[in-house]
Amino acid sequence: MSTTAEGTETRVTLADVAAEAGVSLATISKVLNGRPDVSPPTRARVEQLLAHHGYQRRNGATSTKAELLELVFHELDRIWSMELIDGVEKVAKDNGLSLVLTVTGDRHSPGSEWLDGVLRRRPAGVVLVFSDLPPDLRERLRSRAIPFVIVDPAGDPSPDVPSVGSANWSGGLAATRHLIELGHRRIAAITGPADMMCSLARLDGYRSAMNSAGLPVEAEWVRFGDFHVEGGRREAMQLLDRPDRPTAIFAGSDLQALGTLEAARALGLSVPHDLSIVGYDDIPLSRWVSPRLTTVHQPLRQMGVEAAKLVLAARTDDASASSPRIDLATSLVVRDSTAPPAD
Amino acid sequence: MSTTAEGTETRVTLADVAAEAGVSLATISKVLNGRPDVSPPTRARVEQLLAHHGYQRRNGATSTKAELLELVFHELDRIWSMELIDGVEKVAKDNGLSLVLTVTGDRHSPGSEWLDGVLRRRPAGVVLVFSDLPPDLRERLRSRAIPFVIVDPAGDPSPDVPSVGSANWSGGLAATRHLIELGHRRIAAITGPADMMCSLARLDGYRSAMNSAGLPVEAEWVRFGDFHVEGGRREAMQLLDRPDRPTAIFAGSDLQALGTLEAARALGLSVPHDLSIVGYDDIPLSRWVSPRLTTVHQPLRQMGVEAAKLVLAARTDDASASSPRIDLATSLVVRDSTAPPAD
Repeated sequence: MSTTAEGTETRVTLADVAAEAGVSLATISKVLNGRPDVSPPTRARVEQLLAHHGYQRRNGATSTKAELLELVFHELDRIWSMELIDGVEKVAKDNGLSLVLTVTGDRHSPGSEWLDGVLRRRPAGVVLVFSDLPPDLRERLRSRAIPFVIVDPAGDPSPDVPSVGSANWSGGLAATRHLIELGHRRIAAITGPADMMCSLARLDGYRSAMNSAGLPVEAEWVRFGDFHVEGGRREAMQLLDRPDRPTAIFAGSDLQALGTLEAARALGLSVPHDLSIVGYDDIPLSRWVSPRLTTVHQPLRQMGVEAAKLVLAARTDDASASSPRIDLATSLVVRDSTAPPAD
Repeated sequence: MSTTAEGTETRVTLADVAAEAGVSLATISKVLNGRPDVSPPTRARVEQLLAHHGYQRRNGATSTKAELLELVFHELDRIWSMELIDGVEKVAKDNGLSLVLTVTGDRHSPGSEWLDGVLRRRPAGVVLVFSDLPPDLRERLRSRAIPFVIVDPAGDPSPDVPSVGSANWSGGLAATRHLIELGHRRIAAITGPADMMCSLARLDGYRSAMNSAGLPVEAEWVRFGDFHVEGGRREAMQLLDRPDRPTAIFAGSDLQALGTLEAARALGLSVPHDLSIVGYDDIPLSRWVSPRLTTVHQPLRQMGVEAAKLVLAARTDDASASSPRIDLATSLVVRDSTAPPAD
């Protein structure tokens, strides 16, 4: 144990790392803090040694001066983002922090350039609206004692990273049970893309509800859309344009429910008389479309709140290494797009 | 002229201000940079002297190290905010800056505490989504060479502050002309609150269109709503529940148009057959409501882009003192809620 000029206290000292890398302490400090004027090979070697020795900055060194909380999206989605921003901003303000908002434009991961900015800004923590964070970026945040949490509305769980999601399986179950309780037997499901875990979880909820009620799930009743209007319309046309059509569709998202509504109109089917539809998400326009959508509410704002609280708690709590996963409850909102089957 | 340790170069030196205030240069520096450990009376006296002498930090002193651009809302509005954030964030990223998002919760002005945070963070500039900024806050930003621009979707012009809005009068004119060209003569208007300039500008556009076409405007056809659904519904009920009802309503906002649609339904009137409705804003749900709304498009994202560009241009451009007002064009989007009158 020893204490360096950086105020760190770990098994390996920065002086040790500097000696091993053959660079000055000032260079080590630049790398730690995301400053320029370090050659890429040197930076890479220092990062490697820091990771190798499990270097860990003391929590206090960062958090006492932190004035920022970071929120990162890969894109600003009209539906998700506002609620999440609202929730995270509320917690930031309550803790006297300002919110830094980054949109990376890259679906898979924020870049190394973004990370250098974070290291310079030394925020109290980072909330990432991503399905995952690559191991090297995780390691760099961890070594600087900058806690992070992934908010994942798509519900793609990452086992060794703290994350906040919502109960997709339960949502699919509740939507389908509602249709069964209304008396429907021929119930189809349009879920999202097959490579998103939330699509699979919602679909599995649908299957479990059907199986529990002793109802068959015909192969052609299960469809994969794109979570957008067009995918919903396309798959609904396939489901509805046949004599033995289903009397109800669990549409997997509100936008797909709108597409399903369009398909029903195009085929001269009345909703909910000829066809019941359940959406998912409870976006604002689900209350304004005609008929108003029965849907599964996702607590997006609350997910932002919980993620921000989790990341700030990690500053003072060494339990941050336990990588909790929080799934918030979803709830069925019954409106006008569902009714008992016509006969 | 002299140069101080702060790197400033103005007619009054910081040493002059320190001597006059009877404090150290370090204290002056703390006040300039929003740091704590200065008593409120001392801070106030120093601010007063800085303002009195017209102290002005050199632009370069701030902008060369700036990594942040600030965006401030008084509240996150589901309709306005996302588009504006999207536009400002785009320009920030293009300039290698990170976006700091603040929601003050106060309708009238961000507070002094917020301003101290800005002085510490020394951003490249500040974009405020507010109708105004109090003179003392303006002066404090100006003296630190932190440029700012007001984005004002409500269109309340502030003559001596750079601002970005949209063409409300032209929007009201275009909406009303469209109804006149369809053959309507009895056209009513529901505008927003009487104390918002954008309400008055849209209403004046309506009046000018009516007057230019030689059409009368009956006193009871002009209504002030609240820009929300309920106000639209209430005022529309007053307009429509009478034998000499108008055949068309310029609803002043999309939410008021939805309220008008509700009122028409409640009275058994078909839209557009019995009543034409024009909204304002072109919010996403205007495309999903049935019938789809004819409305006036506000270029919110572009307003965010222009505001951010304006604020960043002010860093290198001494024309920032010219306080430009940019009003972006609005445009009519014709959909299904308007048609020629029934007879």
